[in-house]
Amino acid sequence: MNRDLWAEAIGSFFLFCTVIGSGIMAEQLAGGNVAVALLGNTAATGAMLFVLIAMLGPLSGAHFNPAVTLVFRLRGDLSTGAALRLVAGQLLGGIPGVWAAHLMFAEPLLQLSSKVRTGPGQWAGEFIATFGLVFVILGTLRHRPHAVPASVALYIVAAYWFTSSTSFANPAITLARALSDTFAGIAPAAVPAFIAAQLAGALAALLAGQAIFPPEEPTA
Amino acid sequence: MNRDLWAEAIGSFFLFCTVIGSGIMAEQLAGGNVAVALLGNTAATGAMLFVLIAMLGPLSGAHFNPAVTLVFRLRGDLSTGAALRLVAGQLLGGIPGVWAAHLMFAEPLLQLSSKVRTGPGQWAGEFIATFGLVFVILGTLRHRPHAVPASVALYIVAAYWFTSSTSFANPAITLARALSDTFAGIAPAAVPAFIAAQLAGALAALLAGQAIFPPEEPTA
Amino acid sequence: MNRDLWAEAIGSFFLFCTVIGSGIMAEQLAGGNVAVALLGNTAATGAMLFVLIAMLGPLSGAHFNPAVTLVFRLRGDLSTGAALRLVAGQLLGGIPGVWAAHLMFAEPLLQLSSKVRTGPGQWAGEFIATFGLVFVILGTLRHRPHAVPASVALYIVAAYWFTSSTSFANPAITLARALSDTFAGIAPAAVPAFIAAQLAGALAALLAGQAIFPPEEPTA
Amino acid sequence: MNRDLWAEAIGSFFLFCTVIGSGIMAEQLAGGNVAVALLGNTAATGAMLFVLIAMLGPLSGAHFNPAVTLVFRLRGDLSTGAALRLVAGQLLGGIPGVWAAHLMFAEPLLQLSSKVRTGPGQWAGEFIATFGLVFVILGTLRHRPHAVPASVALYIVAAYWFTSSTSFANPAITLARALSDTFAGIAPAAVPAFIAAQLAGALAALLAGQAIFPPEEPTA
Repeated sequence: MNRDLWAEAIGSFFLFCTVIGSGIMAEQLAGGNVAVALLGNTAATGAMLFVLIAMLGPLSGAHFNPAVTLVFRLRGDLSTGAALRLVAGQLLGGIPGVWAAHLMFAEPLLQLSSKVRTGPGQWAGEFIATFGLVFVILGTLRHRPHAVPASVALYIVAAYWFTSSTSFANPAITLARALSDTFAGIAPAAVPAFIAAQLAGALAALLAGQAIFPPEEPTA
Repeated sequence: MNRDLWAEAIGSFFLFCTVIGSGIMAEQLAGGNVAVALLGNTAATGAMLFVLIAMLGPLSGAHFNPAVTLVFRLRGDLSTGAALRLVAGQLLGGIPGVWAAHLMFAEPLLQLSSKVRTGPGQWAGEFIATFGLVFVILGTLRHRPHAVPASVALYIVAAYWFTSSTSFANPAITLARALSDTFAGIAPAAVPAFIAAQLAGALAALLAGQAIFPPEEPTA
Repeated sequence: MNRDLWAEAIGSFFLFCTVIGSGIMAEQLAGGNVAVALLGNTAATGAMLFVLIAMLGPLSGAHFNPAVTLVFRLRGDLSTGAALRLVAGQLLGGIPGVWAAHLMFAEPLLQLSSKVRTGPGQWAGEFIATFGLVFVILGTLRHRPHAVPASVALYIVAAYWFTSSTSFANPAITLARALSDTFAGIAPAAVPAFIAAQLAGALAALLAGQAIFPPEEPTA
Repeated sequence: MNRDLWAEAIGSFFLFCTVIGSGIMAEQLAGGNVAVALLGNTAATGAMLFVLIAMLGPLSGAHFNPAVTLVFRLRGDLSTGAALRLVAGQLLGGIPGVWAAHLMFAEPLLQLSSKVRTGPGQWAGEFIATFGLVFVILGTLRHRPHAVPASVALYIVAAYWFTSSTSFANPAITLARALSDTFAGIAPAAVPAFIAAQLAGALAALLAGQAIFPPEEPTA
């Protein structure tokens, strides 16, 4: 069995289900105070990221994110076959995670988001958010590998608040969020620009990380 | 003396008291904003779980949850006698924990909840919540045993928000919550379906965990 | 110089200043939503406890609490002279911490609280809160000494929410809060019963801890 | 290449961007409840501090703060040249971080704050906040160096709430915040007194730390 594919699939299922489900819960309960809703969404997402990375990192690297997988492929830490297995796991597990959230909250399973997220400010947000995420992963792996689960989780906690786009920073989750017309959704037409900004940020971070953190220990 | 029974009893007392007490406090203070109330309930529950698991894990495994005890019994990590001792401790300590919360908040000690929690969405929520809890315990014990207290606590933090049922994920706490007509309560008639969903989720996670995490270190 | 006295004094200064100051800030900003105010007060207190215990534990044990010092004296871990030095530091540092909070928030320095906190529910709250605090300290020191800063901080995070009294659990801080007519205050007439409940809880926890956690490593 | 300068620049970019950006986000979403806004601002700032210190501490010490750099220079842990490189990095990275936040939130890049923050209470706040920050850094480096990232982050979490000024505690970030007319801003005329109070607090903490924590391990 492909443990790495399964680890990415189960992890992406829970991560994407958490992002969508906690968004629905938060919006339902927050009585219109969006900052309160975002606090709930943030706490749930950050907490789940720590749990999943601590548990599944040893099996697959715990990427749950094609931009991260691409960076490790370009660094030569993964074969093309392994990288494709991880991305397959991310999509095959993550999209059912969205549907599971809909099932739990008695929403129609199949949806398309109508929430338009666009404009140079949001694209800059995705570029910066993904740059930071990849830079943090590379730097923390290099200097404090045991801190990767906490650091990635806390980076996303911060990024939900300091970027105008609330930091998707992940092409797979961007696609998955397009399938949910809820708090965390994004209209399909807005997806390509988000993914382009994310990939540009990831590649810039790869270059910056290689300049600043000389490689030594490729995986956590 | 049976240290394992006492550890489960004291831990369940504080855990169940925290779930009920922080729910009462949060609802009293939140002025109708249920998301704010759930933030307080979440912070208190997650914080207490970390504390209790770090302290009592070495004595009893710090289950506080018959579904978890059942899984370790089925894996062969516990004798039937030990498993029964743990479950006895969970109920003998946990139910007085509910009453202690009522005492502190000047509520009648003996109550039955009138809060109906039912429907396929909530049952799916309990199945997924308990599947995830048991899977996280098995995976983290296998790969990062020192992270179990933080991972279980943070998993529940996330699960309070991403599941439609706010993640009971524990048959003993489900019974105990039926004895409190407050924020965290559940009507007695709704209990059997919740427990059935929890046990199904736990057993599914046992199978998934054995496929993905080959056993090696049975206890933390 | 008496490093232990100074450590208790500086730690108590910052701890008590945080409890009072964050209470004032939270109440001023929360627009009447007391649950939101308590979230801010909780986050600040828990965060500061972690910081102070991690830093000052090696110098004095980082008690900041006469009930805790009494328990270690009764266990024989401290001489009477050392215990008195610690309590002196707690009061000599902690009360100016209250005044520093008043200074920062442009309040009159010298105040007496008018907030009546009384009744069997609140006394039960203080008994349970202090029992739990001391039990957690003894158990965590015994089984996971490196987790003491996080465990004590998170225990108080939970206890601010699950007890009806918001968990003072500390005779020195109870006295100090009587000197502030703000969010965290307590009327002087209510102080003796709170302290009596705290001492009873601490002594009960000493007995319970000695039964359940056999002593071995007396200090963190 | 000067890795220390680059580490300070990138870290200050993300830190200052987080302070300003999360302030804008929080104020936009909080519907006038400033305590809710401060919770979001606090969570983002504390989370980012942990991440940046864990990752960049081994390269530059992860000061992001001229007052901290000055203290290490005075202790003899840094040469004057190294100290100037760090401060240059803090300003050259941090100020563009403010502009990046403006860019993401579609604000004019160049702004000056109109938020007057003044008076003895706020100056006392900055003195105490910076005293505590430097004291925590010196004490934690001495006794628990591995806890520095968590301790500094959590100290700031507390200090956002217990000081009347919300704890700038950093001359570089004070200058940078003057360039943003948003939630976290400070009017330029108020800057000199804030910086004077910060430097006084830092120097007092240097003396207190040398008395209480005898030096041994100068850097983390």
